[in-house]
Amino acid sequence: MAALITARMASTAEILACFDDAALVDAALRFERELAAAQAEHGLIAPAAAAAIARACDGFDPTGLGEAAAHAGVLAIPLVARLRAAVPAEHAGAVHLGATSQDVADTALVLQIARAMPLVAGELAALADRLADLARTHATTPALGRTLLQPAELVSFGVRAANWLLAIDAAAARLAREHRAASQLALGGPVGTLSALGAIGPAVRATLAARLGLAAGPAWHSRRDAIAGLGAALGIAVGATGKLARDVALLMQPELGELAEPAIAGRGGSSAMPYKRNPTGCQVALSAAVRAPGLVASLLGGLPQELERGIGGWQAEPPVIADLFALGHGAARAMRVVIDGLEVHAAEIAAHADAASHVQVARDPALAAAARFVDEALAIHAAAVAARNLAE
Amino acid sequence: MAALITARMASTAEILACFDDAALVDAALRFERELAAAQAEHGLIAPAAAAAIARACDGFDPTGLGEAAAHAGVLAIPLVARLRAAVPAEHAGAVHLGATSQDVADTALVLQIARAMPLVAGELAALADRLADLARTHATTPALGRTLLQPAELVSFGVRAANWLLAIDAAAARLAREHRAASQLALGGPVGTLSALGAIGPAVRATLAARLGLAAGPAWHSRRDAIAGLGAALGIAVGATGKLARDVALLMQPELGELAEPAIAGRGGSSAMPYKRNPTGCQVALSAAVRAPGLVASLLGGLPQELERGIGGWQAEPPVIADLFALGHGAARAMRVVIDGLEVHAAEIAAHADAASHVQVARDPALAAAARFVDEALAIHAAAVAARNLAE
Amino acid sequence: MAALITARMASTAEILACFDDAALVDAALRFERELAAAQAEHGLIAPAAAAAIARACDGFDPTGLGEAAAHAGVLAIPLVARLRAAVPAEHAGAVHLGATSQDVADTALVLQIARAMPLVAGELAALADRLADLARTHATTPALGRTLLQPAELVSFGVRAANWLLAIDAAAARLAREHRAASQLALGGPVGTLSALGAIGPAVRATLAARLGLAAGPAWHSRRDAIAGLGAALGIAVGATGKLARDVALLMQPELGELAEPAIAGRGGSSAMPYKRNPTGCQVALSAAVRAPGLVASLLGGLPQELERGIGGWQAEPPVIADLFALGHGAARAMRVVIDGLEVHAAEIAAHADAASHVQVARDPALAAAARFVDEALAIHAAAVAARNLAE
Amino acid sequence: MAALITARMASTAEILACFDDAALVDAALRFERELAAAQAEHGLIAPAAAAAIARACDGFDPTGLGEAAAHAGVLAIPLVARLRAAVPAEHAGAVHLGATSQDVADTALVLQIARAMPLVAGELAALADRLADLARTHATTPALGRTLLQPAELVSFGVRAANWLLAIDAAAARLAREHRAASQLALGGPVGTLSALGAIGPAVRATLAARLGLAAGPAWHSRRDAIAGLGAALGIAVGATGKLARDVALLMQPELGELAEPAIAGRGGSSAMPYKRNPTGCQVALSAAVRAPGLVASLLGGLPQELERGIGGWQAEPPVIADLFALGHGAARAMRVVIDGLEVHAAEIAAHADAASHVQVARDPALAAAARFVDEALAIHAAAVAARNLAE
Repeated sequence: MAALITARMASTAEILACFDDAALVDAALRFERELAAAQAEHGLIAPAAAAAIARACDGFDPTGLGEAAAHAGVLAIPLVARLRAAVPAEHAGAVHLGATSQDVADTALVLQIARAMPLVAGELAALADRLADLARTHATTPALGRTLLQPAELVSFGVRAANWLLAIDAAAARLAREHRAASQLALGGPVGTLSALGAIGPAVRATLAARLGLAAGPAWHSRRDAIAGLGAALGIAVGATGKLARDVALLMQPELGELAEPAIAGRGGSSAMPYKRNPTGCQVALSAAVRAPGLVASLLGGLPQELERGIGGWQAEPPVIADLFALGHGAARAMRVVIDGLEVHAAEIAAHADAASHVQVARDPALAAAARFVDEALAIHAAAVAARNLAE
Repeated sequence: MAALITARMASTAEILACFDDAALVDAALRFERELAAAQAEHGLIAPAAAAAIARACDGFDPTGLGEAAAHAGVLAIPLVARLRAAVPAEHAGAVHLGATSQDVADTALVLQIARAMPLVAGELAALADRLADLARTHATTPALGRTLLQPAELVSFGVRAANWLLAIDAAAARLAREHRAASQLALGGPVGTLSALGAIGPAVRATLAARLGLAAGPAWHSRRDAIAGLGAALGIAVGATGKLARDVALLMQPELGELAEPAIAGRGGSSAMPYKRNPTGCQVALSAAVRAPGLVASLLGGLPQELERGIGGWQAEPPVIADLFALGHGAARAMRVVIDGLEVHAAEIAAHADAASHVQVARDPALAAAARFVDEALAIHAAAVAARNLAE
Repeated sequence: MAALITARMASTAEILACFDDAALVDAALRFERELAAAQAEHGLIAPAAAAAIARACDGFDPTGLGEAAAHAGVLAIPLVARLRAAVPAEHAGAVHLGATSQDVADTALVLQIARAMPLVAGELAALADRLADLARTHATTPALGRTLLQPAELVSFGVRAANWLLAIDAAAARLAREHRAASQLALGGPVGTLSALGAIGPAVRATLAARLGLAAGPAWHSRRDAIAGLGAALGIAVGATGKLARDVALLMQPELGELAEPAIAGRGGSSAMPYKRNPTGCQVALSAAVRAPGLVASLLGGLPQELERGIGGWQAEPPVIADLFALGHGAARAMRVVIDGLEVHAAEIAAHADAASHVQVARDPALAAAARFVDEALAIHAAAVAARNLAE
Repeated sequence: MAALITARMASTAEILACFDDAALVDAALRFERELAAAQAEHGLIAPAAAAAIARACDGFDPTGLGEAAAHAGVLAIPLVARLRAAVPAEHAGAVHLGATSQDVADTALVLQIARAMPLVAGELAALADRLADLARTHATTPALGRTLLQPAELVSFGVRAANWLLAIDAAAARLAREHRAASQLALGGPVGTLSALGAIGPAVRATLAARLGLAAGPAWHSRRDAIAGLGAALGIAVGATGKLARDVALLMQPELGELAEPAIAGRGGSSAMPYKRNPTGCQVALSAAVRAPGLVASLLGGLPQELERGIGGWQAEPPVIADLFALGHGAARAMRVVIDGLEVHAAEIAAHADAASHVQVARDPALAAAARFVDEALAIHAAAVAARNLAE
């Protein structure tokens, strides 16, 4: 049994499924199956061997694999042993040929990431699009700006939304960029040089990469910058949703009363105070923003890996990356739902703006400046959307 | 399905079970059941109500609880609702009386911790005792000291073991101290003052605490120092095992060849290099040491909680504490097993010491100093053991 | 030239002075001077040598020491070389006798810490005492409790202050405890065993420790748990001031208007909005709370030190410890000043409480519960003060 | 006085100078001077006013500015007050017109970064080029691969260098990319909309940006993703140098003896063991790699900034960014010097490779694979150099 209740309160079932045992075993088997297919394509193993391996993958029984992997110290040992036992003896040598444990582990991680990325990117895109609508709609809805939690000059509510939008767009773009860099097959064999595959090694690597939808390049067994970069990008995306959540939670304080999370039956209540309407979506994103920085630090802390393959550093990554994706999707989803149904209390917003007798810049020029800010942000968003569409 | 393979590779089944769904629900139900019992004892509710609640807890069905808790934003909402539905209508009001969601969440966390602590403490104690044996046995076994990974003056292998020992003992003592500070019931009601229970509130709290084996004190809904302190102590314990693992892994390099992890069938192999004998136990501890610092930072990052109950900070703690315990137990267990069966290659150790023609302090005074160091460490260890026994 | 403006904005001149170059050199020289004195006392060196070394310390010229230390890789190399050059040739061998670079570095750090601790402890104690006054004064001043930034049941303003108080007291007690554990002389010589001093080594160590006001024990060159523990305690103290700051800043929002930082001429203004009164003290503490968790993680990340003396880990500590003390003192000072002159807007507090028609617990029982909470907190505080006085 | 000795031991005088008080004041004054010039260009203020402001900047006296800034809570308050006092009264209103404190703070930080970046990028580029030489020279120098600190299959020493090279190149490219994103003027005025400058605001912003060599865009007062991204990129670069340092330090162990840091008079010694040759350059980089992850976490922790301008989060950034640049340059410089003069002990490397009777892949195919790895890495490096040159 696992700690799924706790995990689920911080995240979504969909993204947790991308990193669960089934997903991990599936990804690892995909590596072994497609490796065999690629090697058969290049004549390294017999087509019959590749077919037998594919069948062994189909019929793979993962029972007890966790215990066995923990005992061995790597997943590949029991996984490959079971595959070898499952194919006819003459094909046993064709399983995992020329590959090493870390090839499976790293590629499986990248394949799990490939499945998780569209979920996070999709939520961020949807969130951004909705924020753009808010910015457009409220481009000149006067609102009281607040700095250091004190009243300042006038903005519009659209400026606030535009600012959220720019942060989400920037985070999504960085995440997409880092994901591209990290989407690389790991196939290097024992010491990373493909030495066991001979001169045809790079060609096999290219074929395998194509089959898995990944880029090919020199094995990155002890170069973990791309994983760290991806993790940092996820951490920044979580931070951007956290900023949005912080603002919504502040503006939901009844004394301000400018916004409210959507009323959803059964959500945001209190076991002791039935009258309460808690900012539950914001809570998810703010909680994620508390956890993400340390997780990113964990990835960075593992960078100084030893020689051709480190001891401890890369083994620390999979659960940390899984947590960052879980938090990233959980936070983006929570805030997308919040913004989808956000209650904008125009009267209260207006009242605070109207009451601001202290301001130095008059209402009309302040709103004109606000409209310019929004226009600029929407133009940047349009470019981001175009870039996003181009990349797909 | 969950990410148990990955979790198990870094930890043990026993400690993971302390924080799984069953353990969480069990702890939460224990809170509700004993709260009712305590309230019955003080005449706040009828004995029949307490009995009905106990029965409802016995028959509790956790199906779908994770989804429901995620929807509500807190576990207590669906949990209490199910209990209320499961008792006769006249007792529904007796369920969770005067308590709040965070009371359940915080106390459940503390109860899970109470179950996990002896596992970690037990492994650390066993590890320390074995290190003490090593230190005693090798108090004057000459060994080459190494500073900044370069040869230095002579020590004994016992000095090295004594140094590991002191670090583990100090970490275990801090952990025990912080655990005592954190073993406190949370019962405060909606705003932490026990306001819904009237003047008898503190007495109910004391009774409930006694029933749960916890200390009683003012509710700590928005004071999370004890949780952070416990987390930091776990992080330091992981660091101490990481230091031990770093040293063993370095001394296992064949060119040094002074130590080896025990040969355990099926452990430490390589999927590509069957001749390998990897420091797999050290890998577990070093990997934990990469992850723990960031997790501690996450707990500290959540400290500035808002007013009577924060938004995001305390909600971030349970998975982080669970991870720190998982890493703490995983690392301590792994290194306890390593030290239990450690191969001490006396001849190689002696050879390196003998070949050290550069040393400035002669062998005899160096070994006499080593023996004094070991004696001092063993005396400190004896005091630590006495303190540990006293506390039990 | 240094980055003092930035440092000073986050901290105080007094604590920065505890870790500046003069303080470091002073501490390092104190080690060398008292080491010689202790060795003369035990007949290891001539009294004349100790006297010469003391004179050389008095006349020490630190010019260019930073550059020289950076070149050498350790401070002790140029420092000891200068001392040796400054004493008569026959006493050169008496300088730094039997000690190693890390002995100086570690002891100097501990001596700097010894100077910094009373500053931090003093501010925390003063802050706690003032919070106790606030709690006492407002034990039954009705206030609206707020959970997840939403209105909840009634508390008193005294409950809020008592909660702040308990967090500060707990943090101060942990800090004092960890400081005691860390206040240990480092004298171990090249490999930590005092091997170069012979059988009299431990006695010399005890004398030196007494002269420096530190405890004595086995050298801790590669056991850094005490430094990490101290750092974590500082981080938690910063977090406790951050919680206080978060609350004050929230309650200072004009729409709530329950509190205000004291009006201090020239503080809290805006370069663009002269009407503003910013929560500048809170800003200092909240900024510290953003920085501290990562610094604590840095200390924990260095724990797996290599063999008898690590490469990188312990060298990372001094600037991190200095930063944590700087933030700890800066935050505690800032909030002590805030609380010293805190404007408690009783009318606004009362108005919010009065307007809370949603509450379930009536005013009188809510206030009675509040008074009990405050009493309990004040009793705990009294015990903390007594323990603090006892320890002094 | 400041903690320069400690700072200098971890970094270089050049980069510390980019973030010292003089650099900060210079950057802040550059903002004010060029803002005035831009506003004069657009007719917002008189040319005479701009000239007077320029003169006031030239004659600016920073005495006591740190204390004053700490008192005010922001640097801009005393800085602008002094400028206003230094210009003829009729021009006082032209100083800092339409700008806000955070505009100065943020832009000054970006200008300091602009000065620091070429230093870090230059060291990384030089380090990469030298690593490329090493890889080329030793493309087929047989070497024993080591995984999990245990002997594995054969590589070449060139493969090891190529792996270091790829990590440094990837880190440098990420750093350049994140620097471009962060090189943006902050000019938004009180609430970020340029409201005080009217319709000409964006034009003034564009002119000012061009004068400062920065990009222009919507004010980023409360969107800190670019700063966090830059910090993460620095942290990853530090990690890449840390990986290189870890490997060099391991290979310098005399029992391996494959490499040595260059012998530099007065560097790498021991105050107790004159025979020692410590890996002092590696120590600098490894120490940086211990500190950097926590610093990155600090930046991420500050992301959820409040509304139009946060309290605490952005104020935490300047010292953290300064530390990351200091560590980045210190580590890159240290390792560049190490690699510049690296002693490659070909005989020992060969001996270990020759003695490796356990290997499964024969020498010739292993070396052919090594040569392919090196070629591929050098091609990637050539592309990186071309991209780098293009960007300059």
